[in-house]
Amino acid sequence: MNFTIQNVLIAAVDGYNTVDVQVVNGIIAAIEPSLDVIGTAINGENKLLLPGFINAHTHSSEMWLRGAIPAFPLELWLAELYDFAPLDLEKVYLSALGTAVETFLSGGTSVVDHLGLIPGKELETIATAVSAYKEIGIRAFVAPLIQDESLSAGIPSGEIERTHLPYFRLTTATLELIEEAVRQFHRPEEGVSILVAPTGIQLCSDALFTGCIELSDRYNLCRHSHLLETKAQEKLAREKYGCSAVEHLQRIGYLSDRTSLAHCVWLTDADIDILAKTKSTVVHNPLSNLRLGSGIAPILKYRQAGVNVTFGCDGAASNDSQDLLEAIKIGSLLHNVTDVDYQHWITPRQAVEMASSGGAKGLNMAELGSLTVGKKADLVLYDLTSLSLLPRTDPIGLLILGRPTNVVNSVWVNGKQLVANGKVTTIDVDELRQQLFNHSQWDTHRKSQTVGEIEAHYRMVMGL
Amino acid sequence: MNFTIQNVLIAAVDGYNTVDVQVVNGIIAAIEPSLDVIGTAINGENKLLLPGFINAHTHSSEMWLRGAIPAFPLELWLAELYDFAPLDLEKVYLSALGTAVETFLSGGTSVVDHLGLIPGKELETIATAVSAYKEIGIRAFVAPLIQDESLSAGIPSGEIERTHLPYFRLTTATLELIEEAVRQFHRPEEGVSILVAPTGIQLCSDALFTGCIELSDRYNLCRHSHLLETKAQEKLAREKYGCSAVEHLQRIGYLSDRTSLAHCVWLTDADIDILAKTKSTVVHNPLSNLRLGSGIAPILKYRQAGVNVTFGCDGAASNDSQDLLEAIKIGSLLHNVTDVDYQHWITPRQAVEMASSGGAKGLNMAELGSLTVGKKADLVLYDLTSLSLLPRTDPIGLLILGRPTNVVNSVWVNGKQLVANGKVTTIDVDELRQQLFNHSQWDTHRKSQTVGEIEAHYRMVMGL
Repeated sequence: MNFTIQNVLIAAVDGYNTVDVQVVNGIIAAIEPSLDVIGTAINGENKLLLPGFINAHTHSSEMWLRGAIPAFPLELWLAELYDFAPLDLEKVYLSALGTAVETFLSGGTSVVDHLGLIPGKELETIATAVSAYKEIGIRAFVAPLIQDESLSAGIPSGEIERTHLPYFRLTTATLELIEEAVRQFHRPEEGVSILVAPTGIQLCSDALFTGCIELSDRYNLCRHSHLLETKAQEKLAREKYGCSAVEHLQRIGYLSDRTSLAHCVWLTDADIDILAKTKSTVVHNPLSNLRLGSGIAPILKYRQAGVNVTFGCDGAASNDSQDLLEAIKIGSLLHNVTDVDYQHWITPRQAVEMASSGGAKGLNMAELGSLTVGKKADLVLYDLTSLSLLPRTDPIGLLILGRPTNVVNSVWVNGKQLVANGKVTTIDVDELRQQLFNHSQWDTHRKSQTVGEIEAHYRMVMGL
Repeated sequence: MNFTIQNVLIAAVDGYNTVDVQVVNGIIAAIEPSLDVIGTAINGENKLLLPGFINAHTHSSEMWLRGAIPAFPLELWLAELYDFAPLDLEKVYLSALGTAVETFLSGGTSVVDHLGLIPGKELETIATAVSAYKEIGIRAFVAPLIQDESLSAGIPSGEIERTHLPYFRLTTATLELIEEAVRQFHRPEEGVSILVAPTGIQLCSDALFTGCIELSDRYNLCRHSHLLETKAQEKLAREKYGCSAVEHLQRIGYLSDRTSLAHCVWLTDADIDILAKTKSTVVHNPLSNLRLGSGIAPILKYRQAGVNVTFGCDGAASNDSQDLLEAIKIGSLLHNVTDVDYQHWITPRQAVEMASSGGAKGLNMAELGSLTVGKKADLVLYDLTSLSLLPRTDPIGLLILGRPTNVVNSVWVNGKQLVANGKVTTIDVDELRQQLFNHSQWDTHRKSQTVGEIEAHYRMVMGL
């Protein structure tokens, strides 16, 4: 599976170079003009080669609800999600494939799947997603989504005394489950890693967090959680801990250079300093944050404080696409309205770096994320003759600031080609499309019972 | 050119209906289940039919600069634009075609082209764009971009005494030019309308505005301008008029039910009341407003005040795409972070209405903008089996909240089919692609002289 891409544009410090790129045994072996062809020759003319992006936060099975959930903030949206989440392994398999296809076709080579688990079939859910990802060939970071408190505990109480039903599974059982998943599926060298992934402070006890820290240390696993996605969660943290969520997570030792935190919308300057000090990574999910009205994460502040930031699509029930280029575009432009000094704005090249090496850093994968000799060949080749990238100006400007359509020519993960001439080669995408169609129906008359139960309390406590 | 679309989904008050749609002589003749086939039968199964959207503000020739201009606010961005604007009619022709193609493939059937004019070849520029639009068949509202003050006058003076070079063309000559354009090209019944379109208060004298009002009244033309796109323009209006720009435009009689105003980011509540009272239309350009850091237009307030709002892409140098579905998605979701009460958020169905009938209203075209018997057949048929619209949930939710790719199956304007099976039928798009490629080059080492001249003053007066 060796190959040599000839005469391809790559980003240089200032502008672009036209080079050949040799890939040998899954590793970038040389980047120079006029190299000998090793393995297959790939025509790189009028194409741009970039390191693969990382979709650093999604929930693949939410694909079954995309386009479906009304205009709700997170807390009510979650109630809908719980009521209508897919409970069937076949659907988990299909949506994992669908997520991977959209990732490839928007420049991604890795996905962090904060995967909802079917109650009673938790290991099977993980096994199913892992098998889909291995089949299609994407580099997968499977982060089984766990919690040990019930949904209503995730909404602040305000002045009201409330009790919550206990969660259906004990904390210890959940930790055993994750340990078993690690034993069965954690194979980084084969492209599948398991992460510990307590959903967030809003639905997890300290016992669950510390159990996850222990597993993370013992098995060298990355850590992944939601963090302060909404104003309501900020209130809840104060009720629960008497301090900010970030201070609490630092105190219990959860934050580290292999901890990535999705959203991070409602952090104080002191919280930001803690993220910088602990070398934690922020995963910015701009479209989900807009869709759910969560707020605009202070991404320019993170960057100024030296916090590593990368991008995620978030699940398709809150975005509702899995297009990384869209998340990168909006996730960089959105912040121009938060700082009048344009010298602080994120440039297209910086956005590319955040989406590639920023993502790799957050997953503790120094061997990924840039076009450098010796790194793993997770690569994406873009066709710059696509109508959406014309006329010719600055290739990276066009790719990040435009709305590229049908632009991904080839994708390789670990040197293996998974997309060629714009088509996924490892699965039959037309068959997938047919299956997604067959397993669903036009449905617009659904009504969530749980939303009905919690909406009045939510509006009261949020002052609506 | 009569046709009947069979078994197609259309939006009903609550949910969807499956119907047949007959189009006779360019008019929607019947919408009911099980109609007789008149003319060509079109298979509407698993497809959604919507009225065509209107791209209510763009500048087609900016396509030559897309992806190219650095992260600048409007005032510096404009300097780059002026330095590198295309000066050649062939390019005007190609970018008009390119803009129309992207409009069709993202659900649009009409475009408002606030068209930059090549100095000395003003009428030829208009003639060229008009001929491109007639060739491809899009419904075109050509709004020749005029001003009568020079660029530096568009930046507030602050405490500094400044003089500005006079504009190269006299106000009267500009008005004569527009009148000649109206005589030659204003043919609404053939799908081409000319608008009076002074660029905005920042670069236009009252004499230009009142001359445009007079032409608008005499020839029954719509009026189109930029309005308060940036904080700098708000400052400038206070310097220039001693009141808000909106108050001034009302006083001189520019605002009316056929006036559409692009951007409207920096309006006060009193200004919003004036827009409502005068029945003016706001054209929201969310992506450009983010890209240039202009701010978030208070769209939810406009809607609550009863102001008509529709969407524009803005020119491709400040977006940098001409995809209407992207503008509609971001233009509706963006405002969820501006109002904590989700009951005020724009729903996907409301967004569709804003983009279709809202656009028609702003152009004084009561015969457009909805699927209603008797209206003109400007229609778009979406293929709901596209991977990006699966699994099946709510078709309009998927279309507006997702990132649809390759979803437009057919487009008709005035009953004439312009896209069939996803391909434009009136021009050779591959040839267009080749021409766009040939007329451009990878270029990343440009330096704008004008930016150098005005940047220090801009930073000073904006307190940077």
